[in-house]
Amino acid sequence: MPHIDVDTERPGIGGLLAFRPGPARPLLELAETLLRGPNSLSEGERELIVAHVSTLNDCTWSKRAHGAFAAALLDGGEELVASVCRDPRTAPVSAKMHALLDLAGAVTRSGKEVDSELVAEARRQGATDEEIHDTVLITASFCMFNRYVSGLGAAVPEDKSVYDELVEIRVKRGYLVLGGVEA
Amino acid sequence: MPHIDVDTERPGIGGLLAFRPGPARPLLELAETLLRGPNSLSEGERELIVAHVSTLNDCTWSKRAHGAFAAALLDGGEELVASVCRDPRTAPVSAKMHALLDLAGAVTRSGKEVDSELVAEARRQGATDEEIHDTVLITASFCMFNRYVSGLGAAVPEDKSVYDELVEIRVKRGYLVLGGVEA
Repeated sequence: MPHIDVDTERPGIGGLLAFRPGPARPLLELAETLLRGPNSLSEGERELIVAHVSTLNDCTWSKRAHGAFAAALLDGGEELVASVCRDPRTAPVSAKMHALLDLAGAVTRSGKEVDSELVAEARRQGATDEEIHDTVLITASFCMFNRYVSGLGAAVPEDKSVYDELVEIRVKRGYLVLGGVEA
Repeated sequence: MPHIDVDTERPGIGGLLAFRPGPARPLLELAETLLRGPNSLSEGERELIVAHVSTLNDCTWSKRAHGAFAAALLDGGEELVASVCRDPRTAPVSAKMHALLDLAGAVTRSGKEVDSELVAEARRQGATDEEIHDTVLITASFCMFNRYVSGLGAAVPEDKSVYDELVEIRVKRGYLVLGGVEA
């Protein structure tokens, strides 16, 4: 049960966004820019970082939703996403993604856990300054979204078809439609 | 030294926002809505929550900047802000603010630390659902901003006059001007 009186017909963060439309638009525009905007990291790679961070933060809603997005966008599908969420060190991803997932893990614990060696390793594996920046900001933003959803006790559906429908909307139409602020 | 090649002439988050203008606008619009938008919590109370959260996250930049904003906006000034950052339980704030600062502390640790008793106590002290929602989202958003700033090693000026200038812009013109995306 959510801690405040939101529309529980809207799953996960949806009920919270509808409760307070003021911040809903910038929150969704942030997700749209970071996760679907032009980027040298693929949309699937960015959603994989989100699934990893949401797993570390133990946010069931974001783990399920963004895990489903990553699985739909990446060749490795659900198996790849599960292996990253279980243990990114042994998951079959590129050396650059290993370094970026390590960086994301540090930021999730605390911004102060990032040291020059973590950043240098990402660079050695071919990450650009933009990719390092975006990995830190994507991670930081899900340290927000995860706390928003869990902190207000948002409803987390069990029914897999709910997430299948979210995948369809996110992939074809994007986060502003997903969050209900655009048709 | 920042971990990536940003303009170090721009203090704190400023260099990061200029490095990547895409997400800069929604980030600043989020801050503007949450901290300066219409609300039954005063701007000073909201900045006090941010100063508390930024202290818990040990983010020197946000602690100094938002501490200065809270001090400028609240009758208690710097002394009140320092007492909240030292120990919110003994700080001279209202019973409602005590409960909301407690809630913010829990969200900072993890969204899953929020239980129905913390929320019930805020309600007993007169907090509305909107105020509970906004306390959780303001806190969550600074778990993002703090990680963004610390995780990329943004420059933190020592010179007090830098923060005095930020106060002037934040109070009179707002976060979009402060972040350099509007004149």
